Amino acid sequence: MSICMSADKILYDFLTLKSDLETSFNRVPDQAVKCGFGMQGVCCRLCANGPCRITPTSPRGVCGASPDTMVARNFLRAVAAGAACYLHIVENAAVNLREIGRGNTDLPLKGAALLLEMAERLGVAGTDEKQKAANLADLVLADLYRPRSEKMQLVKKLAYGPRYDKWQELGILPGGAKSEVFDAIVKSSTNLSSDPLDMLLHVLRLGIATGLYGLAMTNRINDMIWGEPEIRTARAGFGVVDPDYINIMVTGHQQSLVGILQDALLSPEADTKAKACGAKGYKIVGSTCVGQDMQLRGAHCADVFAGHTGNNFTSEALVATGAIDLLVSEFNCTLPGIETICEQMQVPQFCLDDVAKKKNAGYLTFDIKDRHSIAGIIIQVGAESFTARRKHVTITVPAHGYGDVLTGFSEKTLKSFLGGSYKPLIELIAAGKIKGIAAVVGCSNLTAGGHDVFTVGMTRELIKRDIIVLSAGCTSGALENVGLMSPSAAEQAGVNLKEVCLQLGIPPVLNFGPCLAIGRLEETAADIAAELGVDLPQLPLVLSAPQWLEEQALADGAFGLALGLTLHLAIPPFITGSEMVTKVLTGDLEQLTGGRVIVDGDIISTVNQLEAVINAKRSGLGL
Amino acid sequence: MSICMSADKILYDFLTLKSDLETSFNRVPDQAVKCGFGMQGVCCRLCANGPCRITPTSPRGVCGASPDTMVARNFLRAVAAGAACYLHIVENAAVNLREIGRGNTDLPLKGAALLLEMAERLGVAGTDEKQKAANLADLVLADLYRPRSEKMQLVKKLAYGPRYDKWQELGILPGGAKSEVFDAIVKSSTNLSSDPLDMLLHVLRLGIATGLYGLAMTNRINDMIWGEPEIRTARAGFGVVDPDYINIMVTGHQQSLVGILQDALLSPEADTKAKACGAKGYKIVGSTCVGQDMQLRGAHCADVFAGHTGNNFTSEALVATGAIDLLVSEFNCTLPGIETICEQMQVPQFCLDDVAKKKNAGYLTFDIKDRHSIAGIIIQVGAESFTARRKHVTITVPAHGYGDVLTGFSEKTLKSFLGGSYKPLIELIAAGKIKGIAAVVGCSNLTAGGHDVFTVGMTRELIKRDIIVLSAGCTSGALENVGLMSPSAAEQAGVNLKEVCLQLGIPPVLNFGPCLAIGRLEETAADIAAELGVDLPQLPLVLSAPQWLEEQALADGAFGLALGLTLHLAIPPFITGSEMVTKVLTGDLEQLTGGRVIVDGDIISTVNQLEAVINAKRSGLGL
Repeated sequence: MSICMSADKILYDFLTLKSDLETSFNRVPDQAVKCGFGMQGVCCRLCANGPCRITPTSPRGVCGASPDTMVARNFLRAVAAGAACYLHIVENAAVNLREIGRGNTDLPLKGAALLLEMAERLGVAGTDEKQKAANLADLVLADLYRPRSEKMQLVKKLAYGPRYDKWQELGILPGGAKSEVFDAIVKSSTNLSSDPLDMLLHVLRLGIATGLYGLAMTNRINDMIWGEPEIRTARAGFGVVDPDYINIMVTGHQQSLVGILQDALLSPEADTKAKACGAKGYKIVGSTCVGQDMQLRGAHCADVFAGHTGNNFTSEALVATGAIDLLVSEFNCTLPGIETICEQMQVPQFCLDDVAKKKNAGYLTFDIKDRHSIAGIIIQVGAESFTARRKHVTITVPAHGYGDVLTGFSEKTLKSFLGGSYKPLIELIAAGKIKGIAAVVGCSNLTAGGHDVFTVGMTRELIKRDIIVLSAGCTSGALENVGLMSPSAAEQAGVNLKEVCLQLGIPPVLNFGPCLAIGRLEETAADIAAELGVDLPQLPLVLSAPQWLEEQALADGAFGLALGLTLHLAIPPFITGSEMVTKVLTGDLEQLTGGRVIVDGDIISTVNQLEAVINAKRSGLGL
Repeated sequence: MSICMSADKILYDFLTLKSDLETSFNRVPDQAVKCGFGMQGVCCRLCANGPCRITPTSPRGVCGASPDTMVARNFLRAVAAGAACYLHIVENAAVNLREIGRGNTDLPLKGAALLLEMAERLGVAGTDEKQKAANLADLVLADLYRPRSEKMQLVKKLAYGPRYDKWQELGILPGGAKSEVFDAIVKSSTNLSSDPLDMLLHVLRLGIATGLYGLAMTNRINDMIWGEPEIRTARAGFGVVDPDYINIMVTGHQQSLVGILQDALLSPEADTKAKACGAKGYKIVGSTCVGQDMQLRGAHCADVFAGHTGNNFTSEALVATGAIDLLVSEFNCTLPGIETICEQMQVPQFCLDDVAKKKNAGYLTFDIKDRHSIAGIIIQVGAESFTARRKHVTITVPAHGYGDVLTGFSEKTLKSFLGGSYKPLIELIAAGKIKGIAAVVGCSNLTAGGHDVFTVGMTRELIKRDIIVLSAGCTSGALENVGLMSPSAAEQAGVNLKEVCLQLGIPPVLNFGPCLAIGRLEETAADIAAELGVDLPQLPLVLSAPQWLEEQALADGAFGLALGLTLHLAIPPFITGSEMVTKVLTGDLEQLTGGRVIVDGDIISTVNQLEAVINAKRSGLGL
């Protein structure tokens, strides 16, 4: 049986050997024939006169929609959905922070220092930490819930100054974030907007809301609650799983929900329960972005967090090892394919957020006030599952991953690591020791060469050319599992970058963690730009989401474009059926924000293009 | 050149003769080959691994999504978008009411009596009309903007009691309406929910929010501002257009926006401007639902409102008559196809709501506070257009429509007409003079036999069987333009219904106006049920949206299903690829809410089924 390739050879071998296992890798060949209309965005299913498709003999839909209108509508709706996902996350995080602030739960604030810092920056009132927490959360929630006719109040304080001015000039400062999404859905409905340009500007507003709130603010709130990142060495890959423990796998994007397990699983009650069924205790096994987030904040949950295993498309295989006793999910990327494997492996599932309710899973309504009772149920079912299933299931955990992954990079830890200022980095760039920065972010998909194939190949080529890589998202899961985030990867870098890495004891690929940390990369870039006194588009920095998968990635990408960055994708979004939309995104947009999309499915050609952009920006800075 | 059929022969002949005109009717044959995957809802374009399609050899998407998950996601997202459209409308209406209440505009409240009545019913505080208007609007807006975790406060006061209890029992009382939409978008994203049942329950919540707020509350607010409906005879069809006037065609769903033209176009300044360019004055020419709404409230704008011309797919032809000088649109159903015809006919366009921005149209940011300046621009451009275009354009207005259409039916006027109580109607039903009620609602499409073909054919068959028809939506536009809303149509009814019609001087098809008035039909049904002391599913009343077109119709349908009504559709929504979703909607749902979907594309067989439902409900009531 042919399966999809992976850059992760051990994972690939594991999947190949499991002949009784059906995962996404097996389904790729079955879905190999793609619909050209869908891929180009010129299929419309909005109304009962459809579906309509654009062909040479049917150049418009029944309603008269041109390919430009059709593509723009489909694209806007996809970006809106992606933005909605991230905004849902920040809303939940803010609600939890507010409840802590109001004293409705005994959860401590492990990152109180950041809370105070942000309260100062945002002008949040309050006489103590808790009041400030509640008030800060209220400010965020108020912005999310504003009507679209009211601009969000925190944008000016959160955005890099020159960018804010640019957005104001372009008229793309977002109104209330949830209403921006809502109206995008209305706008992209049938017989409503037909104006591609207006829809693309709406995409940029959604990008800004996504980036500043959905990404960056979520990170900050989670840092306040669960503790700020610290740079440290950690183990990553399936090797983190110890079958002697009751292993609770977590998938999703919301540490603000699953984080409640951190203390609970270490409680004496949990310990007693684990011992009673012959386990050494409980462990949280990280998978997908929430695992990446816990790895990032690993300094604060080291005893209970086994480590991060891998990205979206490793999750099915992780369950198939047999070592997982319970799956707790709270968001994507929890593949539907995981459900049948859970059944095969007798793994019960709980969902903590109904937007991510799995068909055959239990559902626990999450309220941070009920954290003890929710954790109690999970502890109980985990123990029952361990007892029930272990005698029937064969466990095969492959020797997978690396024990020396450098983790915990953030906008703050990187700066501290450099001595409290980006000057040393800027000097390295100026001296040509580091040619530039590539932020390699986003998902993994199974189409751009296979699982992580493009991401890993491109990253290897980038570092070979002395371009340092910063990664956030499923790309991090990919890169750490092939060793590129271990210090020894310095050997794969070009001579100059290698020298830097060896000197600093870092790998040439820095692990910022989950896709949410794309927000951290923006802040890092803004800090560097501020140090140089330039705007973001002037930096020798490129963005690539080579293997983007979900609508969320499109919203992230929209943020990158609003920031004025060059954004590479290995496969295009479903827009190529519109010459106009394609031309705006890949060209004209540069005149507006400074950003543009490069679509290139070839690794060498991509890196040539990205290097050329970096060189041009270097020249622009007189380097 | 073959074009799509229409039940409206004069329209069809007009389109056939216009050989240089391309409308939706011409594009139907070009789009005749439909994608079976899209039609069945088993095409997924949510992620870059796709598009995926369900086939016998690819029974799941790459991610593992089953056809049930795929269909449920697509359907939920479509209903959410439809709900969003209606909720956008009620939000705008409420904002305008609030501004009037706050005294920020000098617009009067022509329906102050209703305001006071609703203020009483909803417990709205305030010492005078204006305060009550502002406070009522605030209550509506507060409900729209609640988080999903908070139930909307007005639902209990707006819903029919037994229904509220049923919804509470089923756990489908909606939280904040905009958040219900928002979370539906999140839920229907890739690798989030995979649970079809949870998604279908979400659809019902969206239906309730749509019906009580998007439909019924919009009507009420517009009644408060623009005056309550009154039953009266009016002219409908293209014959309302008088080329001697500067004709401003309006399309959309928001009288709360275009209503500002009503007084302005009658002002002395406007009159002078019109006379100066040789016109007799200005007229508003109604098209699509906003035209239907103005017709409904025609008693309050008779001098300036020329009349209603027709539904969605008559709008292109209306521009093609050459008699339109300016198009003002503010929502769907403003077909993109209209744009090229506007260019051909030199008709400038203005959009008043950016969600409905047309590509080649001017955009006027709407704020009711600026109503005079907005109207001023429209008056000026209307005059300039009249002057510029009339010498170049041939005007051909066909002799189309009827001069004796009975209009203005509403939940209140029907009751008044019957003497202040539904008892006479109930007695007629009990006596078998009227066998039952069919609410024929929703859109027109070009697929179920052609433009209005099924709607008109089914309605004729229904009345022949003594089933009285109440219509709201583009169906009204269809039925009035073929004479079924004129008293003489009594001749087409069965012997019993004919007798009733002749006695009361009404046609067998009652004109409730726009699709928004589906909310009025629900209230009418609830009033009848209350009079009988039964719940809605017990009534001998069926709902049919035979030629549903847009996602909004799906949200309306979801309301009908939540109300417990039998809902007929001539063509299925894109759900048939999931046995489970299809089975729930067409069967199992009846055990929950009392409602279910009947899909039947044959007129006689449909009416047989609907009559059987009515007969069964009659039996249930002991009739």
